[in-house]
Amino acid sequence: MDKLILHEYAASGNCYKIRLTAALLGILMERVEYDIMKGETRTPQFRTHINPLGRIPVLQVGSRFLPESNAACCYLADGSSLIPADRFQRADMLRWMFFERYHHEPNVATLRFWLAFVGIDALSELQRSQMPAKRLAGEAALQAMDDHLALVDWFVGDSVSLADIALYAYTHVAEGGGFDLSLYPAIQAWLARVETLPRFVAME
Amino acid sequence: MDKLILHEYAASGNCYKIRLTAALLGILMERVEYDIMKGETRTPQFRTHINPLGRIPVLQVGSRFLPESNAACCYLADGSSLIPADRFQRADMLRWMFFERYHHEPNVATLRFWLAFVGIDALSELQRSQMPAKRLAGEAALQAMDDHLALVDWFVGDSVSLADIALYAYTHVAEGGGFDLSLYPAIQAWLARVETLPRFVAME
Repeated sequence: MDKLILHEYAASGNCYKIRLTAALLGILMERVEYDIMKGETRTPQFRTHINPLGRIPVLQVGSRFLPESNAACCYLADGSSLIPADRFQRADMLRWMFFERYHHEPNVATLRFWLAFVGIDALSELQRSQMPAKRLAGEAALQAMDDHLALVDWFVGDSVSLADIALYAYTHVAEGGGFDLSLYPAIQAWLARVETLPRFVAME
Repeated sequence: MDKLILHEYAASGNCYKIRLTAALLGILMERVEYDIMKGETRTPQFRTHINPLGRIPVLQVGSRFLPESNAACCYLADGSSLIPADRFQRADMLRWMFFERYHHEPNVATLRFWLAFVGIDALSELQRSQMPAKRLAGEAALQAMDDHLALVDWFVGDSVSLADIALYAYTHVAEGGGFDLSLYPAIQAWLARVETLPRFVAME
């Protein structure tokens, strides 16, 4: 296999997804850290050589670069038990990963970033005006997860898949964004299931 | 194969993606239309039986339901030439599909929906306040696509993949959202390439 280098910011849930996938599969990666609070991914050099969008994570595979955390997880897990063998279940796994990108991360993760990293006093007027809508949308995403997990142990099929890993990353730290996880008992039980997986690693 | 039913709103680019994928592959689907402008996907019945999130498209496969347009495309194209055989390219295809969901659709498609369907006079204050940020982010997404397409004919590898289909859907109607496609010559050439594919079907 080509040499793997994760270009990342360790406190980012999007980067953690990739580390958790690699850990569960026993895959080794080098890591290069960038401080996004200091703009280290917005430099011309980063944009030219790593990712034109100026964002982490990026998984480097030999001399090729793969942005988008969920795509990097799919690369690492290709052919493993973290991707279901059944055609419908494989698409259903991606369904939850697209759900994560569209309904969950822009609300749950963004409010965590704004409140726990930027700080409410440093937010712009525009950011502040978006908070109520992101609060409602984030709560709706968590409720949809809780409703689903009330019926099943894992998002897809009978065992852990990348859908669980993608959604675990920002759900387990959602309280940093002001979300009350005690409202979602099925999510809490699922978080505990993820945390007892063999080779599980915690976020740093 | 299980019977396929697309639950959709024909003017939605997210629904069109699935129809275009099916057309290119020669797959037949039944179609059931819902008028989202009349709230027909927000009913208790729709939420109970089709999609708890109250959103189209949903691909019905026999008695199972698959929300998220890009996941439905992956289901239909599984094992076809629309998904690259190479492991890195397969992940890179998903990278552009996650890019579409995160950087492109919430900006390019949302501004089209607000301006061409809802109408600027009917927008809320919050929606109006978000327009400048969505304009900038949409332009950045289109520029990233144009920069990439200046070097290659297709987003991934040497032929059309689901990455092209997912991004074509809302890019070719971006002018409805106030985006000036004449600024992106590589995108224009790529749109024309997509439109000459055998079995291509236009949006309705």
